[in-house]
Amino acid sequence: MEEFEELVADVFSRRCTSRSVLETITGRWAILALVALYEGPYRFNALRRRVDGVSEKMLSQTLHALERDGMVLRVAESSIPPKVEYSLTELGREAAERLIPLLEWVEDRMPQVVSSREEYAAR
Amino acid sequence: MEEFEELVADVFSRRCTSRSVLETITGRWAILALVALYEGPYRFNALRRRVDGVSEKMLSQTLHALERDGMVLRVAESSIPPKVEYSLTELGREAAERLIPLLEWVEDRMPQVVSSREEYAAR
Repeated sequence: MEEFEELVADVFSRRCTSRSVLETITGRWAILALVALYEGPYRFNALRRRVDGVSEKMLSQTLHALERDGMVLRVAESSIPPKVEYSLTELGREAAERLIPLLEWVEDRMPQVVSSREEYAAR
Repeated sequence: MEEFEELVADVFSRRCTSRSVLETITGRWAILALVALYEGPYRFNALRRRVDGVSEKMLSQTLHALERDGMVLRVAESSIPPKVEYSLTELGREAAERLIPLLEWVEDRMPQVVSSREEYAAR
């Protein structure tokens, strides 16, 4: 009887595709865009205002990568001027649901991190 | 009566320090190092083998940033040759606990993302 090893995704393995998936959703702008879109659909410029500091180019690249990876849906209405709306797919919602606790924790623990940085700088 | 607005951390605000905290823990190598160290303490070279593909320089930079931000403890034993061991602080454990569900989700959903990429490429 031959044995087959079941292939599973492993982000610790450098050649595993899952690592590139991780990178799509953990870039600075991707995290913020996914969490913003969890609030509801956004048009490009409104999303750009919500994700304070992102350039047009970076937001556009981020949304394309998220669309390609099946997290974000881009819907263009055939109106004049054309309206383009971005929203989360079910996959994107799942990703956002795992990013929100991380963001909340970061905001919550910021003071401790700042103290730690001060101690580190004073060493 | 004067009003005071309570200042709270907001990662959506470009000037909020919390954004730099988010970046410390969501870099590719930082995520993998935090989750690896959640398994237990590691010496540098063993950690480097665990975090497959990381260069010595990048792992060193990553660990310094995590140490500065109070997530990782670096303990040097005064032995010959000196042993340096890295472990998580309580803060680092909290971060890892929020990163693990994200990693597991990424590994779990990789096939869907790959399908999505194929569909996107075929459009």
